[in-house]
Amino acid sequence: MKDNVITMAHGAGGRKMQEFISAIIKKYFSNPILDRMDDSALLPATKGRLVFTTDSFVVTPVFFSGGDIGRLAVCGTVNDLTAMGAKPLYITAALIIEEGFPVLDLEKILASMKRTAVEAGVVIAAGDTKVVERGKADKIFINTAGIGAVYGGKTKISSVNARPGDVVILTGNLGDHEIAILKERENLKMRTSISSDCAPLFRMIKPLLDAKIDLHVMRDPTRGGLAAVLNEISFASGVDIKIFQDAIPLNRAVKTACSMLGFDPLFLANEGKMVIFCGSKHAEKALKLLKKSPQGIFAAIIGSVTGKNKKPLVTMQTTSGGERIVLMPEGEQLPRIC
Amino acid sequence: MKDNVITMAHGAGGRKMQEFISAIIKKYFSNPILDRMDDSALLPATKGRLVFTTDSFVVTPVFFSGGDIGRLAVCGTVNDLTAMGAKPLYITAALIIEEGFPVLDLEKILASMKRTAVEAGVVIAAGDTKVVERGKADKIFINTAGIGAVYGGKTKISSVNARPGDVVILTGNLGDHEIAILKERENLKMRTSISSDCAPLFRMIKPLLDAKIDLHVMRDPTRGGLAAVLNEISFASGVDIKIFQDAIPLNRAVKTACSMLGFDPLFLANEGKMVIFCGSKHAEKALKLLKKSPQGIFAAIIGSVTGKNKKPLVTMQTTSGGERIVLMPEGEQLPRIC
Repeated sequence: MKDNVITMAHGAGGRKMQEFISAIIKKYFSNPILDRMDDSALLPATKGRLVFTTDSFVVTPVFFSGGDIGRLAVCGTVNDLTAMGAKPLYITAALIIEEGFPVLDLEKILASMKRTAVEAGVVIAAGDTKVVERGKADKIFINTAGIGAVYGGKTKISSVNARPGDVVILTGNLGDHEIAILKERENLKMRTSISSDCAPLFRMIKPLLDAKIDLHVMRDPTRGGLAAVLNEISFASGVDIKIFQDAIPLNRAVKTACSMLGFDPLFLANEGKMVIFCGSKHAEKALKLLKKSPQGIFAAIIGSVTGKNKKPLVTMQTTSGGERIVLMPEGEQLPRIC
Repeated sequence: MKDNVITMAHGAGGRKMQEFISAIIKKYFSNPILDRMDDSALLPATKGRLVFTTDSFVVTPVFFSGGDIGRLAVCGTVNDLTAMGAKPLYITAALIIEEGFPVLDLEKILASMKRTAVEAGVVIAAGDTKVVERGKADKIFINTAGIGAVYGGKTKISSVNARPGDVVILTGNLGDHEIAILKERENLKMRTSISSDCAPLFRMIKPLLDAKIDLHVMRDPTRGGLAAVLNEISFASGVDIKIFQDAIPLNRAVKTACSMLGFDPLFLANEGKMVIFCGSKHAEKALKLLKKSPQGIFAAIIGSVTGKNKKPLVTMQTTSGGERIVLMPEGEQLPRIC
């Protein structure tokens, strides 16, 4: 392809778009399912119940320490499938590109999506490209939808299934993604380095499913952070949840940034973490399995479900020994983090 | 919800977003699968091979005669599933909204999506909302992904399956969608009224599948129009295709607009049409079945596959009796038609 930047013609359905798909999209995404280029992808027969999800990504900047919008778009969707106890199988990739976006940047993003898809074990089965005029979108937005198969055939994992006595596990340091984005965007100078935690998590979770750990809830704490996820689970299951501030694993850079900027780590977005509720008898075993994974080495038990409640609350025992209510974040701390 | 316009907080993952989802999204999309509000939708067990597709919609204006971006987003995806001989089952709906977009307009769009989903027989299984700052998107972009089950379990329908002797059927008037958008956008004054053909097509196609019509290819001629679809099929199957200008059904308003503005009807986008290649013995029966459907009353046989060719061509016998090559459109006639 001769063009250095994306033009309106690349999204117009004609010869220029075909050339773009052949030269750029297929260069990275080519596989037997996608290459048929019919109106839909015909998937091989799958066994077991399926899960289905979608997410659009509008993160700014599109490249950041530890990832980019392409990696994020793959991880976000495969992690939503994983959170249901499902093995991610197929994803779609739909691009909305602003006219004038550099082709080289697009290629970097597609290469990153492909690498992340391989890492996550998913096939990019179908896609779409739209181009809008300069000033009508912000560089590039990516939507991914995903299909997964419930691992082992059955799942009871759901936000409504937290039970009194459940142990709450967080699979690693909180807030790395949001602080990495913040640093990039505000050009913050920090002594300690920080990278997004953006990663596909099925490999970390699979050993827990294989070991038949008594999993009740899994959620990945993205927008709204740990506080939002715990409040949603608490509300959906009708249970009180108590966590311990001292138990929450935090990177030093995140700690510093939060105290400098007045951010609450509980509200920070993560893109490579899982919050897991499991029966207490299985908690230590689950923790041990998680810690064997590169994404789970800082996994920790951070709290438990203390009882049923019609007006349930999430509380945190603070470092100083007090107790505070963990509220749902109101709006955002930082817009467009994913 | 008190807000009259969408704010950044509605996409931030906190309390404001929860309120937005409860008050606005669930008001229209509520169903047992979506309402679980887990990270992914758990689908009921399905039989048969699945097809999977995605499309983003960036049409401007968002409301137009005969439809809106919401109806378009549902139709585009269910028609891509239908084109594979599959029954559309589930779709996702992912919104990227510009800050300041009126809530009432959003509600109109969601109501239209819901209505169209019911009309198409699909369940909206999962969704996502992102909000970007004013000026960083153009009002609203919608992505839908869809899952369908191959009707009757098997399909050989594919762009690579056109065969010499195949009859080419077009299910109705060409170009209504693009001319309706053009009229709206340019505020054209026309004596004859024109509406988008935007419609879900599975009900029209189902009788052909039930009757075991020998279908080889189905494609919906959206961006790039009939010319793009025929060229793609010709290339993928390695066959020459010949169509007849006189046989192509055209609305009077489209004819007039094309001759006034120098547009080629073969390049115009459609959102409620199917191009069908089938064995010649079944062509009359297929046509009869199509004409029984409200979407298919103007269905017509427009051409045939004339032979195998390594350098295949699409040609058209013109009204004047000459023959011209139908080329792939180069870029676009009109940007952002879907």
